[in-house]
Amino acid sequence: MLIVSFSCSKNKTSDAKEDSNSQHPKLILTAQGVKAIRTNLGSIPIFDNTLEMVKAEIDAEIEAGIDVPIPKDYSGGYTHSRHKRNWFVLQKAGVLYQILDDEKYAKYVKDMLMQYEAMYKTLPLHPKTRSYARGKLFWQCLNDSNWLVYVSQAYDCIYNYLSEQERNKLETNLFRPFADHISVDSPQFYQRVHNHSTWGNAAVGMIGLVMNDQELIDRALYGIKDLKLDTKEKDDDGGFLNKDGKAGFLANIEEPFSPDGYYNEGPYYQRYAMYPFLVFAEGLQNVKPELKIFEYKKGVLLKSINALLNLSDANGDFFPLNDGQKGMSYYNSALVTAVDVTYHYGDQDSGLLSIATAQDQVLLDDSGLAVALGIKNGLAKPFNKKSINLSDGPKGKQGGVAILRNENIDLVFKYASQGSSHGHYDKLSYSLYEKGEEILQDYGLARFVNIEQKGGGNYLKENKTWAKQTIAHNTVTQNEMAHFNGKYEIGSQHHSVLNYFSSDNENIQVASAKESNAYPGTEMLRTMAIIKNEDFEKPYMLDIMKVTSNKANQYDFPYYFLGQVIQTNFEYKTPEVLKPLGSKNGYQHLFVEATVKAKNKNSKFTWMNNRKFYSLSTVTTNKDELLFTRIGANDPEFNLRRDPALLLRRKNTKNTIFVSVIEAHGSYSPVSESAANSKSSIKELKVVYNDETYTAIKITHINGNSKLFITSNTNTSKETPHKLVINSKNYEWSGSYYFK
Amino acid sequence: MLIVSFSCSKNKTSDAKEDSNSQHPKLILTAQGVKAIRTNLGSIPIFDNTLEMVKAEIDAEIEAGIDVPIPKDYSGGYTHSRHKRNWFVLQKAGVLYQILDDEKYAKYVKDMLMQYEAMYKTLPLHPKTRSYARGKLFWQCLNDSNWLVYVSQAYDCIYNYLSEQERNKLETNLFRPFADHISVDSPQFYQRVHNHSTWGNAAVGMIGLVMNDQELIDRALYGIKDLKLDTKEKDDDGGFLNKDGKAGFLANIEEPFSPDGYYNEGPYYQRYAMYPFLVFAEGLQNVKPELKIFEYKKGVLLKSINALLNLSDANGDFFPLNDGQKGMSYYNSALVTAVDVTYHYGDQDSGLLSIATAQDQVLLDDSGLAVALGIKNGLAKPFNKKSINLSDGPKGKQGGVAILRNENIDLVFKYASQGSSHGHYDKLSYSLYEKGEEILQDYGLARFVNIEQKGGGNYLKENKTWAKQTIAHNTVTQNEMAHFNGKYEIGSQHHSVLNYFSSDNENIQVASAKESNAYPGTEMLRTMAIIKNEDFEKPYMLDIMKVTSNKANQYDFPYYFLGQVIQTNFEYKTPEVLKPLGSKNGYQHLFVEATVKAKNKNSKFTWMNNRKFYSLSTVTTNKDELLFTRIGANDPEFNLRRDPALLLRRKNTKNTIFVSVIEAHGSYSPVSESAANSKSSIKELKVVYNDETYTAIKITHINGNSKLFITSNTNTSKETPHKLVINSKNYEWSGSYYFK
Repeated sequence: MLIVSFSCSKNKTSDAKEDSNSQHPKLILTAQGVKAIRTNLGSIPIFDNTLEMVKAEIDAEIEAGIDVPIPKDYSGGYTHSRHKRNWFVLQKAGVLYQILDDEKYAKYVKDMLMQYEAMYKTLPLHPKTRSYARGKLFWQCLNDSNWLVYVSQAYDCIYNYLSEQERNKLETNLFRPFADHISVDSPQFYQRVHNHSTWGNAAVGMIGLVMNDQELIDRALYGIKDLKLDTKEKDDDGGFLNKDGKAGFLANIEEPFSPDGYYNEGPYYQRYAMYPFLVFAEGLQNVKPELKIFEYKKGVLLKSINALLNLSDANGDFFPLNDGQKGMSYYNSALVTAVDVTYHYGDQDSGLLSIATAQDQVLLDDSGLAVALGIKNGLAKPFNKKSINLSDGPKGKQGGVAILRNENIDLVFKYASQGSSHGHYDKLSYSLYEKGEEILQDYGLARFVNIEQKGGGNYLKENKTWAKQTIAHNTVTQNEMAHFNGKYEIGSQHHSVLNYFSSDNENIQVASAKESNAYPGTEMLRTMAIIKNEDFEKPYMLDIMKVTSNKANQYDFPYYFLGQVIQTNFEYKTPEVLKPLGSKNGYQHLFVEATVKAKNKNSKFTWMNNRKFYSLSTVTTNKDELLFTRIGANDPEFNLRRDPALLLRRKNTKNTIFVSVIEAHGSYSPVSESAANSKSSIKELKVVYNDETYTAIKITHINGNSKLFITSNTNTSKETPHKLVINSKNYEWSGSYYFK
Repeated sequence: MLIVSFSCSKNKTSDAKEDSNSQHPKLILTAQGVKAIRTNLGSIPIFDNTLEMVKAEIDAEIEAGIDVPIPKDYSGGYTHSRHKRNWFVLQKAGVLYQILDDEKYAKYVKDMLMQYEAMYKTLPLHPKTRSYARGKLFWQCLNDSNWLVYVSQAYDCIYNYLSEQERNKLETNLFRPFADHISVDSPQFYQRVHNHSTWGNAAVGMIGLVMNDQELIDRALYGIKDLKLDTKEKDDDGGFLNKDGKAGFLANIEEPFSPDGYYNEGPYYQRYAMYPFLVFAEGLQNVKPELKIFEYKKGVLLKSINALLNLSDANGDFFPLNDGQKGMSYYNSALVTAVDVTYHYGDQDSGLLSIATAQDQVLLDDSGLAVALGIKNGLAKPFNKKSINLSDGPKGKQGGVAILRNENIDLVFKYASQGSSHGHYDKLSYSLYEKGEEILQDYGLARFVNIEQKGGGNYLKENKTWAKQTIAHNTVTQNEMAHFNGKYEIGSQHHSVLNYFSSDNENIQVASAKESNAYPGTEMLRTMAIIKNEDFEKPYMLDIMKVTSNKANQYDFPYYFLGQVIQTNFEYKTPEVLKPLGSKNGYQHLFVEATVKAKNKNSKFTWMNNRKFYSLSTVTTNKDELLFTRIGANDPEFNLRRDPALLLRRKNTKNTIFVSVIEAHGSYSPVSESAANSKSSIKELKVVYNDETYTAIKITHINGNSKLFITSNTNTSKETPHKLVINSKNYEWSGSYYFK
């Protein structure tokens, strides 16, 4: 890598003899990058537009004047919002100074930093006491860390503009005590593996890189030296403070990411956590390239961005696994960072350029320039999401998430570990999408993030009583209890196990996984497939949930559909009065809207949503009950959406199997008032074989054609040859499943 | 008008001596038009594209072969669908023959017509007996009439291609008996004022024009000569068969359209009815220009299209007044006809060209050519919908519908007559929209049109028990009874009366109307305004409902909001079990989700829908009750949507006033997780004066600014000067209202 000595500051106190470590900027922007950006300005549309937007924003801020208020408010209050705004403004003004070479921006940054310095040196703890780790500018150290992650970039940009005396003043009275407060003075926040700590590590490390302070850099990478914390204490969210004593940025990469780049809390929190991971890594790569941070753990940081992008639907919205707010997507600004950094520091995947084009903005730094040039040069290609299996756990041995895709159908099958304190009790659950629209939904979280009127914008109590509960998910609830009895300590010790994943055959994508710990004594093996068969209009989903238990139980098996009931082949009764289905574990939130005993061998249900039809066919016996339910009981503040479900209930049963097909089909136009292909194409769904080793399902189309799907319940290696006799007919194949 | 003698048929049996009446085509396409179309082909993109699409469609039909099955099915069944398809195919093939001058299309039309001739001459009544007026090809005369409206166009196109002998055969065995069956043989269908009869009239008239048969033309225009029907009989929908003996096409124009062009059943049925009105009028204009049909009743036919287009929201969806299915819009093919014909035969309004551009297709005839040329020549301008007051009733004396618009807010205020058999009991009701999204909804109809699984696609019983009921609408229900006690015979005798309408001031649009008959002894005067005031982010709605009664009643006043509850200033209680609010008149369909006694002088409620915030502020006393309700009780087949409402209940009250403001404000982004302007800006809403003559409302913004709105309850002429003292202060103004 060529290092070009470059400086634009008139006040600079150092000279060309300095080595690269004492050059500035060096952290995110580099001197060489600034030179390249200036050369290309005016001819790189997406970069030019972003720059113009940022310039207009910062010019308006400069016009409005600086405000550094004495901290007093929680999130949403004025002082919180102002300090938050300041960190963005400082970072952007620093960048503008470098790119536009206009001193007014440097002066603005300097003036504001000096006001912070004047205030901070005597500032007590923030007056609000709710946090387990109080900050000084903000009510929690997390936000103080956010501030420093951004402001260290601003400091780097005007470093050479400042006199040595000015730098000493800022470092002595502001940056060093600031870094100490969020680390050595707040070990319960800093010294752990958690997304909060990642922000803390990055903040300390980034200011350390700018100040060339090896002690801070080491503290960032490895945690506070020689400090051990109580491993049993918990934080505000119920997570362990420091379960196994690990800490520091490298440990924070090590633990939450699987080798495939899956982040253990799921995509919603990965999106939040990625910024400090990437921006500190970028700084390390620029200042300490010998660390090879992007190659750490086989390049997991950049792999994780690929995983994250694959964990989004056709609109770029992240699948709401665990606590995830629907609508969060790769249009979030953290994903602009993620896409640009991955493109620049990774292998220049041209698919990323199409996402950057959709985002319509880039970072104003070296990586943003690389993306802008790529787009300008016409290199952008579609980002093709494919079926993918993402292992979970630091070593990829704690289950995972499989995404099966065919045409416009996406199936998200979760067989992961608990997912830290934001995890849900949803072993072997799934959600199903068509072109970014939910067919069967995952509820997501129960929270109106940052809508102050709804519980201050924080997690609502229904997140625990409903959203995390097993019955809120498309999986089996046994005896009306949550998996692991809803206990985080137990759930955290276990994970589901992959049986097999197969996406080799373009027409048949299959994932199969087992859960043995959610209900002691009960084993659940779920095999899910997306099958493209020319007899059907669209690919359909086949779902085989095999339950084996050492005692008789009640199993509840819900389908969280959305939209309106069109047709059933069972005659339900609707009650005059709606009562809750149960009293706890989420059941208290479900109203029963209709009930019936199943009568047919297949129970069928067609619904319509967003002008498209969907049908469920499921194998039932005359002992089964079918219930239409709706969320909303015991919801005294209307915190929950009134969404429906069809629930299949099987009582007093030991071993059993739930077999279902979900078809997406047809459409309705209210303009032409015509309904196309509005009925299910399944004539019959039948379990033709089922033992410990194999399960075989026959799917018969209304045209009479039938297909047989056999799944291996145990021996699933790709090469293994299998033989099976069903109804006197011989079947032979090799691999995990048979389909013909 | 220049008549160009033009003929393209090789087999033509007539010659240039013929007058214009014996030239063909002459009905919709004209000989002159065909010449102009051929000249322009290839240089008029929207026309060329439509032509290409139609050609591909018809070529495929020709390839597939002709099928003219013996009639046997209801709608949805094969023979029904096939004959319906045939009428479109014949009409299009005829047009292709003329435009492309390719005999294969003429031959195809001739061959199919001959098959119809062969079948029809011995065809009995359709075997299905459900209709009050059975057809022969279809189960109801209505569909037979649809067929003839289209097929007469096809016959016109190939008229000169046929030999005289062939024409005689078709006319004698098919067209004349066909016209007789739907008219003289089915007077209960034909001889009335109703959209069904309009189709019948048009069918008879159009074939009459092609055949140059004055008797048929007269029968079409004036009804069956010397025939009087029983005026008390009813049809399948409960409408009177022939209340006052009027019949024929002119009577069908006279009765349902007001002088402003409002169609008495509302836009959904107007859209359905418009095709025969316009296409027959087009034929009359071309063949009998001396009738000046487009000037009939001061040009009401084309005025009605302007009214219809104004009865749509920002997306072009028609407001679902009376029985109206949501999503029906000006993208419906009948509106392609409406827009093109109105442009061509009207005054070439360039706004229509922008709608035609959005429709992305034109008629393949003279009017479609005119539109295509207009678009090609860059004449298209936006179609600006403005505030408009549309009178109802044949003479415009039966109330009306007012639409108040400002920026993106549309208020639809209905003070019309009953609206025939498709009318709802919704006097003085309204619905409110922002940019095509519902803020406060009108439920529309309870029907899944043409979705066979839901009651055959027909009206569901909940249409009567819920959708038509007063409590289903945003208006006052007294003593849990529907307006007119839900009796069509009574409702049909009355209508509301305009108090005043004012849209002169761009910032304040007001409509005020009175209803004296819905509840005998009770008078309701509602004044609604959309007010743009710079203190507020968006225009807000002010609603003043003044109720005067000769006895104490219970008044229920619902707000059918959509979305999620964000905040209230009242502490409601939610019940453990949901019970219906009542047992009849629609109340049996509402579950009570929460209740509370009002405590504040203003009750306030903020909700969020589609990422935007809305707030209601309403004047209450501590005797008022507030209830959150949800539709869905006593709905044994899930025919109703589970939509919420907030219901204000005032018991044991004689005279009263409901005063409310609805604000649209702010937004929420799940991508940036930020909420903007999420709270109401109203500090106080206060009735400062209220008597028989005037009502004055003071609206105070949270910034302290306040406005006074005074409405005149009686003397509302624009010129009248008014004087009023409120709290010792003098107010003087002229006109219907005061706002300052």
